[in-house]
Amino acid sequence: MSKNLTKRTEDYSKWYNELVVKADLAENSAVRGCMVIKPYGFAIWEKMQNELDRMFKATGHQNAYFPLFVPKSLFEAEEKNAEGFAKECAVVTHYRLQNDPDNEGKLRVDPEAKLEEELVVRPTSEAIIWNTYKGWIQSYRDLPILINQWANVVRWEMRTRLFLRTAEFLWQEGHTAHATEAEAIAETEQMNKVYAKFAENFMAMPVIKGVKTESERFAGAIDTHCIEALMQDGKALQAGTSHFLGQNFAKAFDVKFTNKEGKQDYVWATSWGVSTRLMGALIMTHSDDKGLVLPPNLAPNQVVIVPIFKNDEQFTAIKKVVITLKLALESKNISVKFDDRDTYRPGAKFAQHELQGVPLRIAIGPKDLENGTVELARRDTLTKEIVSIEGIEDKISELLKTIQEELFNKAKRFRDEHITEVDTFEEFKAQLETKTGFISAHWDGTADTENKLKELTKATIRCIPYDSKIEEGKCIYTGNPSKQRVLFAKAY
Amino acid sequence: MSKNLTKRTEDYSKWYNELVVKADLAENSAVRGCMVIKPYGFAIWEKMQNELDRMFKATGHQNAYFPLFVPKSLFEAEEKNAEGFAKECAVVTHYRLQNDPDNEGKLRVDPEAKLEEELVVRPTSEAIIWNTYKGWIQSYRDLPILINQWANVVRWEMRTRLFLRTAEFLWQEGHTAHATEAEAIAETEQMNKVYAKFAENFMAMPVIKGVKTESERFAGAIDTHCIEALMQDGKALQAGTSHFLGQNFAKAFDVKFTNKEGKQDYVWATSWGVSTRLMGALIMTHSDDKGLVLPPNLAPNQVVIVPIFKNDEQFTAIKKVVITLKLALESKNISVKFDDRDTYRPGAKFAQHELQGVPLRIAIGPKDLENGTVELARRDTLTKEIVSIEGIEDKISELLKTIQEELFNKAKRFRDEHITEVDTFEEFKAQLETKTGFISAHWDGTADTENKLKELTKATIRCIPYDSKIEEGKCIYTGNPSKQRVLFAKAY
Repeated sequence: MSKNLTKRTEDYSKWYNELVVKADLAENSAVRGCMVIKPYGFAIWEKMQNELDRMFKATGHQNAYFPLFVPKSLFEAEEKNAEGFAKECAVVTHYRLQNDPDNEGKLRVDPEAKLEEELVVRPTSEAIIWNTYKGWIQSYRDLPILINQWANVVRWEMRTRLFLRTAEFLWQEGHTAHATEAEAIAETEQMNKVYAKFAENFMAMPVIKGVKTESERFAGAIDTHCIEALMQDGKALQAGTSHFLGQNFAKAFDVKFTNKEGKQDYVWATSWGVSTRLMGALIMTHSDDKGLVLPPNLAPNQVVIVPIFKNDEQFTAIKKVVITLKLALESKNISVKFDDRDTYRPGAKFAQHELQGVPLRIAIGPKDLENGTVELARRDTLTKEIVSIEGIEDKISELLKTIQEELFNKAKRFRDEHITEVDTFEEFKAQLETKTGFISAHWDGTADTENKLKELTKATIRCIPYDSKIEEGKCIYTGNPSKQRVLFAKAY
Repeated sequence: MSKNLTKRTEDYSKWYNELVVKADLAENSAVRGCMVIKPYGFAIWEKMQNELDRMFKATGHQNAYFPLFVPKSLFEAEEKNAEGFAKECAVVTHYRLQNDPDNEGKLRVDPEAKLEEELVVRPTSEAIIWNTYKGWIQSYRDLPILINQWANVVRWEMRTRLFLRTAEFLWQEGHTAHATEAEAIAETEQMNKVYAKFAENFMAMPVIKGVKTESERFAGAIDTHCIEALMQDGKALQAGTSHFLGQNFAKAFDVKFTNKEGKQDYVWATSWGVSTRLMGALIMTHSDDKGLVLPPNLAPNQVVIVPIFKNDEQFTAIKKVVITLKLALESKNISVKFDDRDTYRPGAKFAQHELQGVPLRIAIGPKDLENGTVELARRDTLTKEIVSIEGIEDKISELLKTIQEELFNKAKRFRDEHITEVDTFEEFKAQLETKTGFISAHWDGTADTENKLKELTKATIRCIPYDSKIEEGKCIYTGNPSKQRVLFAKAY
């Protein structure tokens, strides 16, 4: 019973919340807005981390670690950045607890242990990192610095949802320093493309690469590049961002270098990040009313094997075959779980693995042993077939590639069907009320119009796509001239 | 000049501090007591993490993630644990900053944004985790829970030193839940043995496995197992701990389960951890007056290749040979860095790689090309030889194993030579003043005597070794009867 999910058509938001908890991905904790990532959810995140980390290293980056805390005086140094994050900062003010004299067995903050300067729990690390880079950079020979950090950050959000928006979340943040503007811009674009490649090849999630408008930009950036995905309910989700920071942080922290010509200049910067929010995007791109659907490239177990037996003798015979089968699959780099728990029946196991999105399920019983077959079930299509155990490792290896591809194609088809060009405000509103998805429309380029449209429709400009064709038009709201279409949507 | 380290015999502590900074491992940050782990230092830590993570998974553990913050009311639930950590807690009291009306461009804590309940930045996660486990455990079928977390923790230490004692540090903390006392004790011992195996096989650092006395125990534990290493200056270093927590946390958080017989019982617990402190242990076990010495199993680059050339033509010819050589080495799973920077001379490169402890250095110049040879230098012994490039990958593969082994043997010889049995308090004091190291002595088993000895000599009981032989004796201080020797030392 506990396995019955709300249907997506009934209440998408409720479906999502239930799925995250029932599939054992994450749950709310005793700390407001902070989540516990459970082992199964964390195993998926680890697969994301491993691949991203590989891609960062392949593009010349190294990992490092910077402090969790940012002294207030550093935090406020880059004004726009500070303004952007000040309203959602967890602040450490004391460094000791003591016994509460009025309350036996309880503790209270020790009033004598007040910090001289408050410490902000990092909402992002530009400030502490650029303050550090100041000591590392003197000459062009010290550049570029290409560093990434895997870390937890805290943003005190008022309305939180598991994975999508939590007070504490896990992420990676790249922070690079360059001698020239061109090099920093190239880095910004490169990393946005790395994110897009990861999203498409590993998450099987099609994304649109683009640039944010001024009002949607990262606080302190000159330009924010992003990848935008479309969820099944027609809402957009920003899945990753890469910022060209210009010389803003170098100026705020006085980071200069001597170039090859012996002249002093401020250093150019980028930063880029993706977070556990990707888990939410993954779930909402592929899953169905029966639970999670995982692309094979990110599934902790790509194949689960469930034995069907009535007595020990049968189990022993099955187990013998399974051990050989498992080794054959593993030799093809396929991850396999043999679910031999004796505390659950096959039906309960089937339901659990379906809910948890294991891409392929093999069931094997006494009849199969006789016939040299197994029952092979696909999670994504919910189809089953009886296949010969002979050479099954090649078939499964192929099938996993097929599933990965088909999940991407299906999501891409859905996304492409949900990009609509509109040319009037009436159409725009009608579109948002019915089909949702991305709306491609002309906009006059002003923040005023953008804000007005947001106020009236809740839709925001998700991005100006890299591949947006240059085309004369009129702003759907003001009628003023426009040179290209931008993508609007309601967003997570 | 900046490369000249203080000699160890001159000032061991200064040597350590300089080495950590000059070898680019870590540095102090703008936040009191918090460090920045630089890319080279972090690459070593990543190698430690990867191997430990593999060992944890091989023993059935899964990773998960729990919140950074612990609400004060949960923090104080297990009294001894709370008492042990209350004095060094960073406390979040507010969740917002605002513009400071008295100070243009500055921020201040928003007095309206005071939290109803303060949040402690985790110094360790038993409280938040056991509060979570309560929701996960109903029956014996839910047990054991075998979870590990990689995380940052904060303990507000007054005197800090890079890696050895920092306010924020990185660690892993295992937290397991079991149906029986015996199973939890077995887990505690197993994980202490995993740590010992890692320390010896990967860090090439011999350790003594043992159990702590009551006064050295983890706050909230029934028993603390540990691995103790000996540094070159004769001081001991606790390198890892594994705690049997009994039912203390289960009782504090009311975590009961129904056993197979249908009866309710409290759950049994363990926790175990190692931290970035291991970096300090690694450095102080092997390094010398010229800098870091790294065991091959933890070296980010096991081999560095430095080209020696006077013109582009020579460089091109060398590079061609190096590319083939590098591939040959990599095919044997040897990590190789080709240091082809044109901004530094060979001498500067040699000095840097020596300082950073790269196990093997290959230098190759025009003469070598003619002769089909290279110069091969060992960091640990500082010896050099000319070797044929033909089949060098096998030689190097063997040599790396030899270095790993010899580093361990050398450290073990040193450690074994620095364990001294003493039978009187006079000898004990004399020993501490001269040779230092571990002192194996009889102790009457009381905390009083232990404290008195600490007060008089600064030496503490590091552990009661697993393999301590049962032997009648008299306490060196009180003369009271004792059944086995324990290990004393001054410690980090």
